[in-house]
Amino acid sequence: MRFFSDNAAPVCPQVMEAISRANHVDTAYDGDALSQGLDAAFSALFETEVAVLWVTTGTAANALALAALCPPHGAVVTHREAHIQADECNAPEFFTHGAKLLLADGEGAKLTPAAVTAVLDSVRADVHRAQPAALSITNATEYGLVYTPDEVAALGALCRARGLGFHMDGARFANAIAHLGCHPADVTWRAGVDALSFGFVKNGGMSAEALVFFRPELAAATHYRRKRAGHLLSKGRYLAAQIHALLADGLWIENGRKANGGAARIAAAAGDRLLHPVQANEVFLRLTVGEAAALRAQGFDFYDWGPGEARLVTSWSQPETEIAALAAAISAL
Amino acid sequence: MRFFSDNAAPVCPQVMEAISRANHVDTAYDGDALSQGLDAAFSALFETEVAVLWVTTGTAANALALAALCPPHGAVVTHREAHIQADECNAPEFFTHGAKLLLADGEGAKLTPAAVTAVLDSVRADVHRAQPAALSITNATEYGLVYTPDEVAALGALCRARGLGFHMDGARFANAIAHLGCHPADVTWRAGVDALSFGFVKNGGMSAEALVFFRPELAAATHYRRKRAGHLLSKGRYLAAQIHALLADGLWIENGRKANGGAARIAAAAGDRLLHPVQANEVFLRLTVGEAAALRAQGFDFYDWGPGEARLVTSWSQPETEIAALAAAISAL
Amino acid sequence: MRFFSDNAAPVCPQVMEAISRANHVDTAYDGDALSQGLDAAFSALFETEVAVLWVTTGTAANALALAALCPPHGAVVTHREAHIQADECNAPEFFTHGAKLLLADGEGAKLTPAAVTAVLDSVRADVHRAQPAALSITNATEYGLVYTPDEVAALGALCRARGLGFHMDGARFANAIAHLGCHPADVTWRAGVDALSFGFVKNGGMSAEALVFFRPELAAATHYRRKRAGHLLSKGRYLAAQIHALLADGLWIENGRKANGGAARIAAAAGDRLLHPVQANEVFLRLTVGEAAALRAQGFDFYDWGPGEARLVTSWSQPETEIAALAAAISAL
Amino acid sequence: MRFFSDNAAPVCPQVMEAISRANHVDTAYDGDALSQGLDAAFSALFETEVAVLWVTTGTAANALALAALCPPHGAVVTHREAHIQADECNAPEFFTHGAKLLLADGEGAKLTPAAVTAVLDSVRADVHRAQPAALSITNATEYGLVYTPDEVAALGALCRARGLGFHMDGARFANAIAHLGCHPADVTWRAGVDALSFGFVKNGGMSAEALVFFRPELAAATHYRRKRAGHLLSKGRYLAAQIHALLADGLWIENGRKANGGAARIAAAAGDRLLHPVQANEVFLRLTVGEAAALRAQGFDFYDWGPGEARLVTSWSQPETEIAALAAAISAL
Repeated sequence: MRFFSDNAAPVCPQVMEAISRANHVDTAYDGDALSQGLDAAFSALFETEVAVLWVTTGTAANALALAALCPPHGAVVTHREAHIQADECNAPEFFTHGAKLLLADGEGAKLTPAAVTAVLDSVRADVHRAQPAALSITNATEYGLVYTPDEVAALGALCRARGLGFHMDGARFANAIAHLGCHPADVTWRAGVDALSFGFVKNGGMSAEALVFFRPELAAATHYRRKRAGHLLSKGRYLAAQIHALLADGLWIENGRKANGGAARIAAAAGDRLLHPVQANEVFLRLTVGEAAALRAQGFDFYDWGPGEARLVTSWSQPETEIAALAAAISAL
Repeated sequence: MRFFSDNAAPVCPQVMEAISRANHVDTAYDGDALSQGLDAAFSALFETEVAVLWVTTGTAANALALAALCPPHGAVVTHREAHIQADECNAPEFFTHGAKLLLADGEGAKLTPAAVTAVLDSVRADVHRAQPAALSITNATEYGLVYTPDEVAALGALCRARGLGFHMDGARFANAIAHLGCHPADVTWRAGVDALSFGFVKNGGMSAEALVFFRPELAAATHYRRKRAGHLLSKGRYLAAQIHALLADGLWIENGRKANGGAARIAAAAGDRLLHPVQANEVFLRLTVGEAAALRAQGFDFYDWGPGEARLVTSWSQPETEIAALAAAISAL
Repeated sequence: MRFFSDNAAPVCPQVMEAISRANHVDTAYDGDALSQGLDAAFSALFETEVAVLWVTTGTAANALALAALCPPHGAVVTHREAHIQADECNAPEFFTHGAKLLLADGEGAKLTPAAVTAVLDSVRADVHRAQPAALSITNATEYGLVYTPDEVAALGALCRARGLGFHMDGARFANAIAHLGCHPADVTWRAGVDALSFGFVKNGGMSAEALVFFRPELAAATHYRRKRAGHLLSKGRYLAAQIHALLADGLWIENGRKANGGAARIAAAAGDRLLHPVQANEVFLRLTVGEAAALRAQGFDFYDWGPGEARLVTSWSQPETEIAALAAAISAL
Repeated sequence: MRFFSDNAAPVCPQVMEAISRANHVDTAYDGDALSQGLDAAFSALFETEVAVLWVTTGTAANALALAALCPPHGAVVTHREAHIQADECNAPEFFTHGAKLLLADGEGAKLTPAAVTAVLDSVRADVHRAQPAALSITNATEYGLVYTPDEVAALGALCRARGLGFHMDGARFANAIAHLGCHPADVTWRAGVDALSFGFVKNGGMSAEALVFFRPELAAATHYRRKRAGHLLSKGRYLAAQIHALLADGLWIENGRKANGGAARIAAAAGDRLLHPVQANEVFLRLTVGEAAALRAQGFDFYDWGPGEARLVTSWSQPETEIAALAAAISAL
């Protein structure tokens, strides 16, 4: 029973069917109708004109977004434990050609205007310092917390005031929206976000993520950057198909809701073992070495996060029975 | 009837089945059994120990290979019409961090030791010049010609003599091997090739190419470079599955043979319209504007290559009837 | 007697004196009055508002200029034998983060609108190709030819029509102006040039070149790029002093005239040995191995350019007697 | 009276004389005898075989050193307030092509094995993290503290144990050696340092710093990297001359001693206003806004470091009288 990562989940049936439906002779690269339909699909979803590119990984989406917002001699403010800092092996530095990540602090990998301002104010405005050009936040965060529209809007206002581009890493955007119950626009462009890495792979997709530009003019150069990074697939229609399948009938939110539901049930069983509030699909627990071993002996697979800490991640695909078994096992510890 | 590109072909049934079979909970990234089995599968195929990474595009495979063989202050010798020069929007420059491509000439995008030597000898050995560090050839070439083992070995010997790494872009490697009928080892490592971009997407795959290092020690840093480029997919098992499916029972060669067969039949009909010998799955024809329009009016889709020239590409998937119809239409011009 | 390179010449006395005069406690980096006075000095010289940065090498000036004009996924059209292609060890690729140089041909390293247009027209306007973003020419060229204002203006018009930035490598700008006798503005911004690498080192300076932006808004980011490249010297006033000394009373043109004069005298002696017209301070000659040896035996030092060819370069500093001796020796061959 | 920066100091007379002596026709780039003599001069100084390149800035020396020690997908551990992190506008990221700086803490910008180990241990050994490849320390530090040979050796041992290259930023190396009174070898290669940025500009030079490789094999690629960065000056002999002048008769240490002496005298006057022990030529003081204004009113120029803090820097060139006046003024506050 895998609670290791939502990347371990399979591809959801509707996505597999969409891939099969796309399996005929068609136009190469992104000239096919499915790829060409992404701008309209996301513009409808977000109720504003957006420009969208598919890519195969969140790392690529994030790095391309940052390259569109920050020059090589600039800096991106982000959380010390952000995925772009801690888990992408210098991809932001590669795609931006050497921009620096300036690290801010905050509970549960969440940033506040005060924390960002402190970093900004530490940078003298002269050529010896890489000047901040963008802010990047993750929603839901790496610790499963969710920014509300108001929280994002406060950061968005700061970005406008200080001339920063604003990127949201939405590897678990579906989980965030499922938690918030708000309109996707409210926590993105209406709150000042310029570019969103909209994750689908953790949410039932196979190999497609969307990079959504709420300032569509940023997309033009990004098309070249995507090709140059080897991220323009010749059979791109199979990626676009996955995204359309997940957008259809709100499947992406439904999958996010399922994953969140599992995490909530485990959280309820975990009680004061919780290291962070559980708002999305990640549960961080205090577990002794012995307790961790005991759970593993019962067939539960998960990630040791630090000494005496564990991370459990739920997905859209886990059977109720597995969730229930894990909750029971944790209660019984 | 699409003769535009082999990228327009669908995914072949065995690959779709393999993807379906892989669709269950599994380990993320490339820790799954399918991904972990690639080294062994290719080592068996090539009869030597190799190290292999899957990536999603030939551009990524090529650029990662060049980055492993050439420093930023070095140069890669290649043909003026090589894909890496003409169709990858500076991906080699991006991944190598600014190495220069030095362009050599040759009929049908094919290089000879003499042509490469002429380029090498034009570079003074001082710090003002980017020193050649690698040679890259494409087999089958961008014009559908195939290097024989002896031709590759002659270039390989030159590489050894001049201290160059040797890369082969095998976007249509299957077509080359299908034409040659030789062992894949004979035209690669036995002939001095260090790294091969082994293409599967044009050959019935969906989104998986293999980067094969015949000097396995080159793979270690490339794993980091792949991640850093956003090319490590979290559900990588779906890529590995595609490759295993095409390797099984020689399906890759069978698909290559089918594609070549279609091209040969069209070539036979084209007679002295041919601009290049047809050895793989591409046919370059002299066609007047009127003739091109006439073919298109009959439902044939293809690429205008230059004034009075056209490119037609066949794939494993074209029905016999479409090939026959095109051959007849060309004969009738 | 050195006719090897104008880089072998010493620093001219006025420059040495200016350096000495600058030798007191002052503001660091480029906050001193001398550095701060460069914009005004060049604006006066060019009769338009310009923004200027000092750097230590022509390679740095060229590469910074190209980085200001061309994105990483773009291309710079230049001559096949341009210094930026042949003698800067990938500096343009480094500073532009991987832009490609597209090479055009032309007698004596000189480009025409037709030659540039041919290159531009060879590039399909799609994401698979690096799109041309800039043109770079060298005046005087690497073979000592000089573009006239009309010739530059024709290229400038082409740049405007095709949306290209326009860079002039003026490593020997003084020699060009000395030859033309025109106003420096006529062959630069009035002819459409956006950025000029204005060379002083070959012209009597020690370590200072100027990067002149005729579109001053390009300078802002370049100040960061200069720092980031390690090219912002903490005692920058010693560089600015050199440039002011050479600009004062037209010393730069006078030095250029002296250098050109020497070359003209040698050219007159060389007669039909000349490989190119001699317009600046470089003389390219046909010389047999025996003739070259004979000249060297008489104490003349120069560069073998190719089989049976030699390059001789004059400078502001050569004594009349050395010039006369060389001219006589060539006549006597 | 400038206590703003040691970069504000003039060039010392012996350096000016050396520049004048070098002012004759000579070989270009670094083929001259002065440049060619650097390896021997530094090998003698350090009592081991070293390979040396001149560059014009400490930023260039540092960034080239890091590029020699760390791949683009790697990381450099350094202090949070190190010059390479805080004052070089992403030059390390530019020259290394995107390596990440991992920041450690320590009093007075000084690192300990424990602080470095804590950073190293925070990095999982997988492809998602940039793996540490080098350590960089500054001696004397940015706060004027000096690492002893034993302290450096402890870090050097850690580097060997963890497979890290070891770089020392010696912008104020002379001040460190003047303070320590030890042999320069003891605090560098004998303590495990691989590459040293040996500063001369703050110590009486004009535009020359040395990059010293104690592993001479690192120099070969660096010669190309230097050229590619536009840092190979065509009249490099004027840089080499500066360095030889400062090395001759221990002038560099004598200048360092003078600068340190001034700082010590000011420190003695400052008493418990000192924020850090004064070991080199920098004095960090607690000063109220009013006190700072009072000193400035008396003609003393210095840098506000933070709220209620000031930085004063002494150099080899300050007259005794200015030092005495400042000491008196501080005492009188």
